[in-house]
Amino acid sequence: MPLQPWMELISVDDHLIEHPKVWSDRLPTKYLEAGPKIIEWERPDTGQMCQVWEYEGRIYPYIGLNAVAGKTPEEYGIEPVRYDDMIPGCYDPKARVADMDIDGVQAMTCFPSFPRFAGAVFAEGEDKELAKLCSAAWNDFHLDEWAATAPDRFVPVAMLPFWDLDASIAELHRVAEKGAKCVTFPDLPDKLGLPSLHSNHWDPLFAAFEETDLVLAQHFGSGGFPPPIAPDAPFAVFIALMGTISMNALTDWLFSPALHKHPKLKIGLSEGGIGWIPYILERCDSVWRKHRYYQNINQEVLPSDLFRKHFHGCFIEDDFGVEVRHHVGIDNITWECDYPHSDSFWPQSRERAAQAFANVPDDEVHQMVELNTRKLYNFPRVA
Amino acid sequence: MPLQPWMELISVDDHLIEHPKVWSDRLPTKYLEAGPKIIEWERPDTGQMCQVWEYEGRIYPYIGLNAVAGKTPEEYGIEPVRYDDMIPGCYDPKARVADMDIDGVQAMTCFPSFPRFAGAVFAEGEDKELAKLCSAAWNDFHLDEWAATAPDRFVPVAMLPFWDLDASIAELHRVAEKGAKCVTFPDLPDKLGLPSLHSNHWDPLFAAFEETDLVLAQHFGSGGFPPPIAPDAPFAVFIALMGTISMNALTDWLFSPALHKHPKLKIGLSEGGIGWIPYILERCDSVWRKHRYYQNINQEVLPSDLFRKHFHGCFIEDDFGVEVRHHVGIDNITWECDYPHSDSFWPQSRERAAQAFANVPDDEVHQMVELNTRKLYNFPRVA
Repeated sequence: MPLQPWMELISVDDHLIEHPKVWSDRLPTKYLEAGPKIIEWERPDTGQMCQVWEYEGRIYPYIGLNAVAGKTPEEYGIEPVRYDDMIPGCYDPKARVADMDIDGVQAMTCFPSFPRFAGAVFAEGEDKELAKLCSAAWNDFHLDEWAATAPDRFVPVAMLPFWDLDASIAELHRVAEKGAKCVTFPDLPDKLGLPSLHSNHWDPLFAAFEETDLVLAQHFGSGGFPPPIAPDAPFAVFIALMGTISMNALTDWLFSPALHKHPKLKIGLSEGGIGWIPYILERCDSVWRKHRYYQNINQEVLPSDLFRKHFHGCFIEDDFGVEVRHHVGIDNITWECDYPHSDSFWPQSRERAAQAFANVPDDEVHQMVELNTRKLYNFPRVA
Repeated sequence: MPLQPWMELISVDDHLIEHPKVWSDRLPTKYLEAGPKIIEWERPDTGQMCQVWEYEGRIYPYIGLNAVAGKTPEEYGIEPVRYDDMIPGCYDPKARVADMDIDGVQAMTCFPSFPRFAGAVFAEGEDKELAKLCSAAWNDFHLDEWAATAPDRFVPVAMLPFWDLDASIAELHRVAEKGAKCVTFPDLPDKLGLPSLHSNHWDPLFAAFEETDLVLAQHFGSGGFPPPIAPDAPFAVFIALMGTISMNALTDWLFSPALHKHPKLKIGLSEGGIGWIPYILERCDSVWRKHRYYQNINQEVLPSDLFRKHFHGCFIEDDFGVEVRHHVGIDNITWECDYPHSDSFWPQSRERAAQAFANVPDDEVHQMVELNTRKLYNFPRVA
């Protein structure tokens, strides 16, 4: 029994589905029409009536990004189309806590859905003032309403108006003050038309991350770049390849100047898996050994040393990754549940975790499922 | 000494630099002007005079794709710019054999350089008749001149005019008759504007591969898709991420109908590394278990079973991959040298291989460095 009953499962990657009034409860009256709201919409391919978000006249199908908790694989489709298609734990924090109790999970880290994992939908906003208010409204919803429902059960998340550097820095300090423990940042920001990690642009923001000691959470797929699948490939190819986005994002960091300038930055590769990490670290080290001389990259520090110092990965189901955990580093691994997405094993997350850790010493299990996350996210056990 | 002196190193991935007369020796007179030829060219950024290929008026800088054999890492740049910058083993098969002797390598599989790894440069040709002749001329050069120099030292490679299906099938049979052992095929063909693996388009070609028992070699980067790096990222990011293209390509195959229709197809993932394979196989199996019901994918066979039956990976330096070799499958691993690219350890390939295999039983080493390749490529030892 390496997963002991007294070990609390803390998940670093889960999702909430925003309820219909998240923005209408918070935006100024003049923005209620343009701001995000739920409307009834006829799906063009099937004629089915759906509930979708409308924001500045744009339609965002569908409301729930893979909100399939409670369904069996035989019932999966791509997306639910109405709130009634989901179990209440998707959008109601009290119901979520009850679902976590069933699942044996103590705490969760709930990323956005409609705004995308790092709020990139608001970067598309025409009215940038509204966009900033939408981003802040999500944070207020998450911190004051969702996480506040059960402070020992939710690791509070926030997003940034990342298209505006000064506003992002101000918002980072504001949400830190309000209790956020991690803040999202898009992977491969250049693919969203923003400066890359190789520029100096982000330095003041990364310094603010260091100052506030918040985790920078880089959820795969939060930037502008999907895996390069064929237009007629089945969706399975896309799902299977999402982890390669985290490989891209990690490699981009490891050869950037950012980590050398920001020695206290803590980065979470949310939902990326861990089994690929030893390969890419060895590969980066090998490339660094052979190719650093003619390139504008740090000449002193091995990429794998940067990984151990700055990053943590996470996994739901990655038996190979658990087996090779010492190549990743026990200090660099956290656990995730991914409720209510299809990768989740709810309501059997604890049983699946116990299986995954069957051959792992107790102290290592405890580090991966609880202690690393409590430390990295400044989220201590409530006595 | 797990790498015993009597084990012959057979590399499945190397490169040749085409000498200046490859096409002028073979094309009909009317095509000599438009066909590929070496010209002197002033490099716009530095004013340096270079030798470059010109084909239908288009300039292809530079002549040697990373032809750095014989240089130390401190001397690496991106590309050599003149034949005089390279050691003769890059473009002269007799000198190559001498270099292989120094390196302790028995045989090599030499992919194209200027035409790209699967000949995609000819797919850009305006005159499609000329393009087909260029592709066939490379094959004749390789089979009649390069590999014929030392038939027991070169595993013969050929390319296809893959933009023309009927011509490709005819060329496959022609080169099989002339002794080719493997034939290149671009990764992610849809990114070159061609039908994907999920179409029926390629079935007659894949059937011809089965019939001729040739290996379909899918070299990373042979299709149209580079890793998604930022425009200002150092080149190291690009080099480190090339293996993710093989991850994409493999996943695309595993969820396509192709392998179910072509049970005898043998596919080599050239230069992709092996350390990432256990992760992606577990991930594909997991996605298949949960997501197959609503998708048009095979419902019977696990993706990892397809891998074991159809694929082989290869590695130069991948100590982690060697450690987890049983998760990949000993039958599915081959060795490569990558002369004259920067990943190669020439002239210490054999020493580096001995280090890599230090903790591996002799019989497994022999399989990976020689026996698997001799069997898959129908390339027996000469008595």
